[in-house]
Formats: sequence, C-alpha cells, structure tokens
Amino acid sequence: MYRFEPNLRIPGPTHLPPSVREAGGRQMINHRGPEFAALLARIDRRMRVFFGTQQEVLLITAAGTGGLEAAIVNALSPADRVLAVPTGAFGDRFAKIASVYGAEVTRLETEWGRAADPAALRAHLTADADYRAVLLTHNETSTGVTNPIAALAAMVRELAPEALILVDGVSALGAVPFEMDAWGLDVVVTGSQKAWMAAPGMSMIALSERAWLAADEARMPRFYFDLRDARKTAANGQTPWTPAVAVMYQVDAGLELMEAETPARVFTRHAACAAATRAGLEALGFRLLADPAFASNTVTAAWIPEDLDWKAFNGEVKARQVVLAGGQGKLKGKIFRVGHLGAVNLDDILGAIGVLEEVARVFGRPAEPGAAVAAAQRAVLAAVEARPAAAEGVPA
Amino acid sequence: MYRFEPNLRIPGPTHLPPSVREAGGRQMINHRGPEFAALLARIDRRMRVFFGTQQEVLLITAAGTGGLEAAIVNALSPADRVLAVPTGAFGDRFAKIASVYGAEVTRLETEWGRAADPAALRAHLTADADYRAVLLTHNETSTGVTNPIAALAAMVRELAPEALILVDGVSALGAVPFEMDAWGLDVVVTGSQKAWMAAPGMSMIALSERAWLAADEARMPRFYFDLRDARKTAANGQTPWTPAVAVMYQVDAGLELMEAETPARVFTRHAACAAATRAGLEALGFRLLADPAFASNTVTAAWIPEDLDWKAFNGEVKARQVVLAGGQGKLKGKIFRVGHLGAVNLDDILGAIGVLEEVARVFGRPAEPGAAVAAAQRAVLAAVEARPAAAEGVPA
Repeated sequence: MYRFEPNLRIPGPTHLPPSVREAGGRQMINHRGPEFAALLARIDRRMRVFFGTQQEVLLITAAGTGGLEAAIVNALSPADRVLAVPTGAFGDRFAKIASVYGAEVTRLETEWGRAADPAALRAHLTADADYRAVLLTHNETSTGVTNPIAALAAMVRELAPEALILVDGVSALGAVPFEMDAWGLDVVVTGSQKAWMAAPGMSMIALSERAWLAADEARMPRFYFDLRDARKTAANGQTPWTPAVAVMYQVDAGLELMEAETPARVFTRHAACAAATRAGLEALGFRLLADPAFASNTVTAAWIPEDLDWKAFNGEVKARQVVLAGGQGKLKGKIFRVGHLGAVNLDDILGAIGVLEEVARVFGRPAEPGAAVAAAQRAVLAAVEARPAAAEGVPA
Repeated sequence: MYRFEPNLRIPGPTHLPPSVREAGGRQMINHRGPEFAALLARIDRRMRVFFGTQQEVLLITAAGTGGLEAAIVNALSPADRVLAVPTGAFGDRFAKIASVYGAEVTRLETEWGRAADPAALRAHLTADADYRAVLLTHNETSTGVTNPIAALAAMVRELAPEALILVDGVSALGAVPFEMDAWGLDVVVTGSQKAWMAAPGMSMIALSERAWLAADEARMPRFYFDLRDARKTAANGQTPWTPAVAVMYQVDAGLELMEAETPARVFTRHAACAAATRAGLEALGFRLLADPAFASNTVTAAWIPEDLDWKAFNGEVKARQVVLAGGQGKLKGKIFRVGHLGAVNLDDILGAIGVLEEVARVFGRPAEPGAAVAAAQRAVLAAVEARPAAAEGVPA
C-alpha cells in the first residue's frame, strides 16, 4: 500500500478531482426518471462546447474503442471504400474496426511520431478520391502527436466532398480547442477517462446532419451501438440500455469544473503542462518521439535510451509514486509515455520531473539537481508567451 | 430534492450499500498495472461461485445488452439457425440481436407472464433440432418470471446435443442458485447493476470449452466485443480496452459483501423479499402477472387495475420516496414492477408495501391499515419454512 496518493501520469484513466470522486460514490437513481433526464441533458449541453458543435452529444456505455466502433458501424456499409490515415496504434485500431466490419480500407501511412501531412493527403486524394469515409485520429495517444484535423478535413472537403470524416477524438477533446462544425467533421468520439476527469466507462459521440442521413442507410450490423436508438431515446431523456450512471455523475461533475475554469483556461493549463513535460524530459536527456510542431498537449512519448534498464528505472520511479505508461504496438518496450491531461496541474508535472531527475541520479545518469524542473518551469513561461492564441483557447 | 434516500424498487440499477458507494469514489489506478490485475482476478474468482462454473468470468465495459451482443457475435455466424425462446421483452431483445447479425432465428413463443415450457421445447426439438444455438432467458425482467433453465437445457442437450445454449442471466444471477457447468450451459451473461449491488457499466460473461471452440469459428463481425481478445489479455491481468475501473471497484466490493453473507443466505434473503412483495401486493388487491410456479425472486410485475389512474397513483408513491418501474414492450402502461434484488432487505420491502397501502387509502381503495404489511411478513415465514432448499441455497 502507498502512504501517498500516486501521481498518475498515464494518458487515461486520469486522476479524479475530489468532487468527481464524490460523484462516483453517489447513490443510484432510476435511469428512466426525471433526475436522469436532467443529468443527460446537462452533459449534452456542456459537451457541445468542447466538441464545437450544435449537434447533440450522445452517450454510450463503453470504452473509447466502443465509441470508435459506433462511429464505423453507424456510418458505413460492408464494401464501402474507406481511407484510413493512421499515425500510430490507435489509428491502426480505427482502421481495423472498419476492416472487421467489411469496409475496403486503404491506408495512407505516416511514420509513427509524425503527424498526418495535409500535402500527402492532397496528393492521395488527387489520385483517388472515391471514398465513402476518411478516418482521422485527432490525438494519437501511442505517439504523443496531435494531427492537424482542421487542415486534413479541409483537404477532404475540397477533394472528396462526399466522403464522411470520422474522427477519433478520444484522448484530447476537452483539453485543446476543437471545432467539429467549423471544420466540417461528421463523426467525433471521445471518452470519459481522458480530459473529462472522470472514470472510464462512457464514450461520447456526435454526428453531423449528413452523418445522421448516412446512419439511416448504413448496413453494417449494429445493435448495442446503434446510435439511431440512442438519438430516439435521448429525445425522451433516456438511453436505450442501462447506462453507467455513476460514470455519468462523474462526467457531469468534471464538466462543471471545466465550465467554471472556462475552456480557455483549461486549454492553457494543458499547453503549459505539456510544455513543462517536454522541456523537463529533454533536460534529463530523453529524446522525444513526436515531431515538435505537432507535439500533443495531452501526452508526451520519449524514447528509452538504449543504455538504460527501463524496467529497473521505472520500478524506482513507481516506488516514488509516479506512474508512467509504456509503449504500445510496435513501440512496446521502446518508449515510455507521460500523460498530462484532465485533472493535471503544473505541480503534478514538476513533481514527476523531479522524481525522474532523482531516479536518473540513482542510475548514475547526468542530472544536475533542480535543473530539469527549472527547465520545465522556464518552458511554461515561454509556452504561454509564445502562444497567446492557445492561452485564449482560440483554435490555431 | 428529497430529504430521505429513496427506496429504489426498480429491477436495476439497484441500491448501493455504503462500502460499494465508497468503492465508486476511489481514485483511479493504472489499468495496465499490478493493482488492476489483482482486482480482475478477484472478481473472476468470486464470480465463478455464483455462475456455478470453473470457467473464467470475463468483464466487458457495457450494459447487459452489450453482454448479450457479445454472447451472440462470439458464438455464431451469419445464416446460423438459432432457436429463440423468448418469454418477454428481454427474450425478444436477445432474438433481435441474433437477427441483426444475420442469424436465421426461429421463435418458440411463450405467453408473457408464463415460463418457457420444457415440454413445448421437447415437442419443438423433436420436430426440428437442427439449430446451432438456443437462446434462453434465465430471469425475464419484463414479466417477473424465472425460467427453468436446468430443465430447458437438459432438453436441448438431449435432443439437439450440438446446439450451443446461450443464457441471458442478467437480472437474477447472484440472487438465486445457478449452475452453469452442471446444467451444461455454453454462454452466460450478467450485469453489474443487478444482484451484484454495483452501478451499471460492466457485463460479466463466461463461456464453456465448446463455446470457446465456437468462438474461433464464428464469423459474425466483432471487435469491441471480441471475447478472444478479452481472454488473451485477462491471462495478463488486463482487459483489451480501458475498462470501467470504478464500476469494477464496486463489483468487487459487492462480491466481498456477498461472500461474507454466504451465497446461501443471499439466496434466502432474495426468496424472502420476493415472497413478501408478492403477498403484500396481492393483499392490496393487485393481480400478479407471473405464473406463481415460476415467479421471480428478483422482480415482481403486477397488473395496473383498469379503474386506477396509475400516473396519479405512482406520483403519490414517488412523493413518498418509493421508486417503482413501469412496463416494457407490449406491457407498457399495463403493469408496474417492483424490484427486489441486490442490496435489498425485508425492511425495504415492508416499507414499500406500507407506502403502497397508504397511497391505496388516499385513492379510496380498500386497504386496512397494516394488513398488507402483515401479509408480507407472514409470507416470509411461510416461504422460508416451505422452501428449506431455497434457504440452504440448493438449486430446486
């Protein structure tokens, strides 16, 4: 047992604030009653702000992966041509779901650690634009890259105007500016355990008007994830199946905190924590995976140095109550990841960097006491000064 | 706002005991770490007792309906012949999921309110036993009927030995004796918000050896609900996708209470609460829906008298903090239901009956003060005396 609460620095599940913890322990209510209807309506209303949409935001009791499956099966039919633009393990997963349900998937590859390139997408679509849908990943959790969704979507809208744009927004929505309607996105998915500061278990999803039309024609089999039922029952303040009520209490409590903080300040806090993480890790000699121009504000991946026994190193880090994430897919064993999303503040990051610095010294690595934390703090000032737009929460 | 905690008498979500509420408010952990692996293993081990199986019990982040979908898509292929034996709205749902995924579904109908009849099943299978699977509902939540699964399964084993037996055990497993292995069942599903005294969000599922073989050959499309992934990752103490960790904390806490109470006493408590509910409602002049020989120990359905303005009546009941459930499917507006499962004890039932009695008098119906509660109490004694087997937790 730990004497102190661990510093949970994984990219979800994220740390729960006190009011969210309290919400998770509340008594059950009738999910077919008026209290539930009010809860559902409140989450929908508050979520729309962060989705940047006037569409309703529906709730599914599932992990984010279930939300991705809902996006696929509600929009598509078997044999539909789909262009996947994977940039890591989660992009691969999105593409695989489409394949499993019978879509004919073409992949536009990007080196892991880089962002999908709008110019490459332009070249591809200029040669072949006959797609029913394009699958994009907003924030690739496995590499710590945030893809330029607005630019990518603009390319699709220009060259393949009939294609639906399906976006995995699981691991950054709520933490960075996002404009579903303005960017012309058709399906956007997120998950409760990420920026929303709640426990896992709920996935939130919004569909554009044309995605709803597509849902009526889509022929992939679906029952649990049939969003037409979710929409119909939501009109009566209900969900089709018994939802994860306690997780909804938590999402609601998290949104209340985010509303009080204001979206702009939520975004600035994430930008600051991300800048501090990157600078601190680099000061410790770790090489970052992500292209700096597209480094994620919610998760940072760093290469494990070849001369470092990571298992032993990470054991010492964990013994000091800092919990990091490993690599996924082909990056397993090659990188580690630091989550900085949801209920995260600068002290959590400085604390984690300080622990990494201490353990680095234990392992005889060059690490001047205080230097990495100082670098992290300097980076925060630079980040906020250099990116007033981010500080104001305005999309870049 | 209520001054007092409502008496939640719906058949799920059920009332949460204090230790389960506390568990729901716990801080997050890494779902890829050792604490999580221990949690998963503990739930599996404790669940097996109530499933009556030596197979592992897997966890899915979904409502019970998601668990039913997992049962279907992991066992079957499109065009498979399936015999559905619906006895109410949930049996209909199970059959519909199979149809949606392309199974060729034959229905053996039973009048709602009655249990599926082993003799009728024998007659049907004698004429046509060429089925890949038979779909059974253990406890039909919409009618308050518990089907004789052991007898029905024996019939399938005898006349259609190759058919897989898929059982919706959502709303009674954990509350009544159940023997998956001894009865020869192939897939059994339950849900966290029922007898397990936890919030909704997790579905638990177990497969027989031959169901696992079937899962390897099944060709219905599946990704999120692919149990082969769940089994593979469970061997490493993980789930394929981020699970509803807080709901798992609660399921674990609920199972700890159930283990301490002993399964036999849990079953007796449910039998007693059910007997009290039935007797109390009948003493108030309500006619029960279920065939008495198969009346459910977890939920009781009663007809709404034609001369009763149910909306007004139920409004007065709710104003007194007792929350009842309405009818589903074709019984909507015709019945009401009283849930008595999970964290329910006799005082909850006597309290609910007392409130119904009081409201009956408000509505000028014949109800001698105290008579219905007294009838409920007498029924408990009779039930425990007449059913020593139930009291010992031995399957009938």
